[in-house]
Amino acid sequence: SRSLNLAVIPGDGIGQEVVAEGLKVLSAVLPQDVKLETQDYDFGAKRYHATGETLTDADLAQLKRHDAILLGAIGDPSVPSGVLERGFLLKLRFAFDHHVNLRPSKLLPGVATPLAGQPEIDFVVVREGTEGPYTGNGGTIRKGTPHEVATEVSVNTAYGVERVVRDAFARAQARPRKKLTLVHKNNVLTFAGHLWTDIFNKVAQEFPEVATDYLHVDAATIFLVTQPERFDVIVTDNLFGDIITDLAAAVSGGIGVAASGNINPGREFPSMFEPVHGSAPDIAGQGKADPTATVLSVALLLRHLGYDAEADRIDAAVAADLTERADRPARSTSEIGDALASRVAG
Amino acid sequence: SRSLNLAVIPGDGIGQEVVAEGLKVLSAVLPQDVKLETQDYDFGAKRYHATGETLTDADLAQLKRHDAILLGAIGDPSVPSGVLERGFLLKLRFAFDHHVNLRPSKLLPGVATPLAGQPEIDFVVVREGTEGPYTGNGGTIRKGTPHEVATEVSVNTAYGVERVVRDAFARAQARPRKKLTLVHKNNVLTFAGHLWTDIFNKVAQEFPEVATDYLHVDAATIFLVTQPERFDVIVTDNLFGDIITDLAAAVSGGIGVAASGNINPGREFPSMFEPVHGSAPDIAGQGKADPTATVLSVALLLRHLGYDAEADRIDAAVAADLTERADRPARSTSEIGDALASRVAG
Ligand SMILES: CC(C)[C@H](C(=O)O)[C@@H](O)C(=O)O
Ligand SMILES: CC(C)[C@H](C(=O)O)[C@@H](O)C(=O)O
Repeated sequence: SRSLNLAVIPGDGIGQEVVAEGLKVLSAVLPQDVKLETQDYDFGAKRYHATGETLTDADLAQLKRHDAILLGAIGDPSVPSGVLERGFLLKLRFAFDHHVNLRPSKLLPGVATPLAGQPEIDFVVVREGTEGPYTGNGGTIRKGTPHEVATEVSVNTAYGVERVVRDAFARAQARPRKKLTLVHKNNVLTFAGHLWTDIFNKVAQEFPEVATDYLHVDAATIFLVTQPERFDVIVTDNLFGDIITDLAAAVSGGIGVAASGNINPGREFPSMFEPVHGSAPDIAGQGKADPTATVLSVALLLRHLGYDAEADRIDAAVAADLTERADRPARSTSEIGDALASRVAG
Repeated sequence: SRSLNLAVIPGDGIGQEVVAEGLKVLSAVLPQDVKLETQDYDFGAKRYHATGETLTDADLAQLKRHDAILLGAIGDPSVPSGVLERGFLLKLRFAFDHHVNLRPSKLLPGVATPLAGQPEIDFVVVREGTEGPYTGNGGTIRKGTPHEVATEVSVNTAYGVERVVRDAFARAQARPRKKLTLVHKNNVLTFAGHLWTDIFNKVAQEFPEVATDYLHVDAATIFLVTQPERFDVIVTDNLFGDIITDLAAAVSGGIGVAASGNINPGREFPSMFEPVHGSAPDIAGQGKADPTATVLSVALLLRHLGYDAEADRIDAAVAADLTERADRPARSTSEIGDALASRVAG
């Protein structure tokens, strides 16, 4: 019999609530012969306040033994900005070489969008996850004085860019429309921009069926609101990917339904799956959080581990649930989880 | 009698056409006693191809003698990406210390927006113009090899951040709502982020009437499409400003109506005013370009030089024209210019 050994990191704020529903749906969808084992980890603001730790080497060694990681949300106003982000989230993405940060956007019929005319939205962003301006490279001199200088260094390597570009081409090749758009700012960030553009054009030779396109990041934000249907697969750098995926989530149903995978495609390390939204401390503990993004992250997790049929069932359940929402009274976090669990089981 | 000595840079693509209308409206609005002198400069793709030059020291010395600069658009597909951007546009912004890049967004009644429900949009972005990831700092090693590394260095100084933050506070203070939002990514770009945040909080003490707010750039893109009415004045870094002002233009009537000023507030150097849109070579020479963004840039130019009443008249003319567009057949570039010129004269 098979097994799925999962590290679960509920985290802060609404993390606990949404992760509970994610696990509920996971249990309901998994075939009987798969033994699901989960282990909870207490990372986040509480542990940081108690011990000063965000993520130790011993933690990483423990996490590494799992098949995958499911994360709720990390972050709390009581912790200075950057401490948990750099000390936990980014540390984990870098330590486990999560270089493919996968963020699908699909607007389902009937789902609310801020855009007029209910456009067709169905694309996926492949965001680089281990380079660019996210490396923490840089520094500060003369801090706090009128002569302070602070730098941030975006580091981009042929190795790092090529592997994520190749992954994106393969994903585009596997989709019906077979279109890949590179998003960068190569007219201003010319060093990194040329590296990205040259590698993109080189790898394109190996995928003659994939139609390619280039957009500056500023223009991409325009098209995301005026012509989102033009996108199929987007590949982009870590920071641009951060920005455009929040915008993409906003136009395609909101961050309540935006899922993401921090993927190590070679499976040397466990991949991590998490909703795009944050810990939302203002609504924590009230049963108001929408667990859909976490449930969709569970689908990404299953697909990564080869459980494609089960992932499809979750996607279908969410689609059916979302499509019917407009006519229904609002439900609590666990009511939504129950509805999804019963759909995938049924 | 007064004089206004203007450098005019039509540039590439639709630049020529839109600048002609901008000048038409400028002539119509200026008081009789103001002597308007203009001098055309041939910067752009044509000159680059002919001479290899983008902007020489001698050019800068000539431009410096004008009161202000009106630019159409620079850029052509025949020139490699980055050459004219870095070699002309950014070189000019840096050489003339255009540290306040001003980009207002206002959605007028009846104007088309991709957003549902015709939200209230009336804010201005103060984008830093001489620092951040735009400095051209960085480099490439092992170019074209599998071991290439390309870096981009964002340079941020207390001097540079404080002056633009102070400018933004003053602008917020002068507006009815008196609200200023800092947009950055201080949880990831912690060196630059702390500098921006600390200076923002320090300068805030001097403007007790201004309500302050902070948003990460990714969250800002969400609010720009879901709650654009929450913004009054935004201050942000060069790259984030580039991205969010294109998005802001898209939601508030399109880049056909988005104006910008590259301002040197101390007037040591002439400021430059330009539409946010590019040279749109696909529609160049066909009379299809909308000159409204250029006309609104002329209004910003007039306001910068102290012609507030004239700037107000242009803004009012554009507002009236835009509001009536929905019911009218499409007009050519010069028809729109004529209509605006006759409104401001009348
Ligand atoms: C919380 C933050 C570090 C993170 C990021 O910037 O990547 C978040 O915005 C995201 O998109 O997952
Ligand atoms: C053309 C380019 C250099 C420029 C920028 O990035 O600033 C443009 O996008 C703008 O916003 O004015």
